[in-house]
Amino acid sequence: MSGAAATLRAEIREQPAAWRRLLARDDEIAALARRLAAARPSLVRIAAHGTSDHAGRYATYALRLLAGWTALRDSMSLPLYYDVPAAAPGELAIAISQSGETPDVVAWLTAARDAGATAVAVTNGERSSLVRAADGAIALHAGAERSIAATKTYTATVAALALLAAHAAGPERGRAMAGAVARTADLAEEALPRLEHAVEPVADMLAGVDRLYAIARGYELATAAEVALKLTEVAYLGAKALTATSMAHGPVAALDRTFPVWAVSADDATLPAVAEAVKRAREAGAPVVATGAAAAKLDGATFTLATPAAPDPLLSPLLSILPGQLFARALAHAKGIDPGAPRHLRKITSAA
Amino acid sequence: MSGAAATLRAEIREQPAAWRRLLARDDEIAALARRLAAARPSLVRIAAHGTSDHAGRYATYALRLLAGWTALRDSMSLPLYYDVPAAAPGELAIAISQSGETPDVVAWLTAARDAGATAVAVTNGERSSLVRAADGAIALHAGAERSIAATKTYTATVAALALLAAHAAGPERGRAMAGAVARTADLAEEALPRLEHAVEPVADMLAGVDRLYAIARGYELATAAEVALKLTEVAYLGAKALTATSMAHGPVAALDRTFPVWAVSADDATLPAVAEAVKRAREAGAPVVATGAAAAKLDGATFTLATPAAPDPLLSPLLSILPGQLFARALAHAKGIDPGAPRHLRKITSAA
Repeated sequence: MSGAAATLRAEIREQPAAWRRLLARDDEIAALARRLAAARPSLVRIAAHGTSDHAGRYATYALRLLAGWTALRDSMSLPLYYDVPAAAPGELAIAISQSGETPDVVAWLTAARDAGATAVAVTNGERSSLVRAADGAIALHAGAERSIAATKTYTATVAALALLAAHAAGPERGRAMAGAVARTADLAEEALPRLEHAVEPVADMLAGVDRLYAIARGYELATAAEVALKLTEVAYLGAKALTATSMAHGPVAALDRTFPVWAVSADDATLPAVAEAVKRAREAGAPVVATGAAAAKLDGATFTLATPAAPDPLLSPLLSILPGQLFARALAHAKGIDPGAPRHLRKITSAA
Repeated sequence: MSGAAATLRAEIREQPAAWRRLLARDDEIAALARRLAAARPSLVRIAAHGTSDHAGRYATYALRLLAGWTALRDSMSLPLYYDVPAAAPGELAIAISQSGETPDVVAWLTAARDAGATAVAVTNGERSSLVRAADGAIALHAGAERSIAATKTYTATVAALALLAAHAAGPERGRAMAGAVARTADLAEEALPRLEHAVEPVADMLAGVDRLYAIARGYELATAAEVALKLTEVAYLGAKALTATSMAHGPVAALDRTFPVWAVSADDATLPAVAEAVKRAREAGAPVVATGAAAAKLDGATFTLATPAAPDPLLSPLLSILPGQLFARALAHAKGIDPGAPRHLRKITSAA
């Protein structure tokens, strides 16, 4: 294994420890959430790129389900290129960036704050430009992330946003979520060695594929989007996330035995939509990898990589992403790619 | 050419005529826009799948730039699976569906209306369930669409939403936009035969590719998303839309000479971000197809498929999508696929 591949594996394995470090600062998240909730934001605007945008997608669900706040992944282009106000007074703006130095994310949060919104940064860059541009910040304390493919900062961001949403819903809900994150860290630690082995034969069987859909419905869509991005960054697939329902419309046309589907399931009311999409994919001849908390309930899947039920269903994305991260690394290995050292790229997203 | 392939070509060619049919009903759109503007919606929620969702993405820009309304592409899962209120009184809910029979889109609009929002349908199904669930509707009058890959209903929806946003901004802006749509139809009619020839050699050169990124920044992101979907539905690519800025972060790692980039340009402040991404893609060895109004300004592109400048820049997406539709068809032909008859799929998106 190259040094870079070993680093990626170490960072995937380190995730439960990163969530526990975040939990050690849970009081700060609770205090920020209380302050934000007291102001009763009329709307939450979220801006981010790539992996951070997938955590932002998760936040649109967590904030609405827990705090009752409508949140949107907003366009940075509108204020930065088209001179539209970035926000309005009474709104909450949340910018997410691992480094905290992504230029247009910093510029967007600055514009939102100038327009009267309360500005919050979520970042692993504790002393970053993004933190300086914000009224309040959640520092992830995930430790240095050396692989260019983000793993532990992604799940630490998801955990941070779950905690923020739960504390905004009230102290009891917040405390319960903190306990649930701690138990989810234990579950992840137990599951990781098993999953690390389980993805190997799937990667060997699928080593010849170049295209893949990752599907889900509801908040596991964040996971599907992140799995697709990891498979693109690390194993160079043309991988695309779709809602299970959209896949069955047009994109199912492209499926055949060389074009697999990665299905992320939740054990809730969204399951029938995912099960139906899996059925359509199998009818089209596509291999299906069933993952997530309800993987065993997806009939006809070619491979099953189940993840434990999270103590709070909203924390399932912390567990359901793990087989995706591990599979991306294993698939890169099976394809003869060095998975820890993606080509052509820089760690900080720069805007021209 | 098969009957199905001929049908797809006819529907692509028919687009300017479809926009003119829509314009003939512009008074109805203006009346609806006046009614909506008088109520001053606090927020616009949009729901749709697939191609209609791409038109919805366009609407988030058009409504904010022209009418000053914040619009989000909302989660249908939240009200339908997780019992969250679909909307609030004073909000505007817009549901988009070609057929007007997509079950979860109809259910979402019904829930939004029940929750007190003003409910608007945008559909080609004049007598559909979606229209019956709405307070007001824009019927596209695009004519029957027989190909499963939507083309004329997509651009008719974009034109309808541009008109709605412009009329909401005021009668003068609305009249000007109607005139601009008419002139854009003329420009499209002139450009189509030229573009139909121009895509052929590009398709022949790229017949071996299985993966592609479509990139843009700002409102041409709707075009990039729609190009990626057409290439998936019609030519079976693993094609994914990305913002130009996000591509340069992680996904650039996957690029090489077998993994091209389709760049959609606008001749505005977003151009440097797209130009920078094109440069990064070329450095990675990827073929780049430059399209859109500023295609000629993207240095180093492998192929250039420029589209005319639209009389109103917000109508550029009506023109910049044309080479993408035509290329999808030509690439399918070059790959030996019958492009008018995608496999495994149904015309109406059904939710389990």
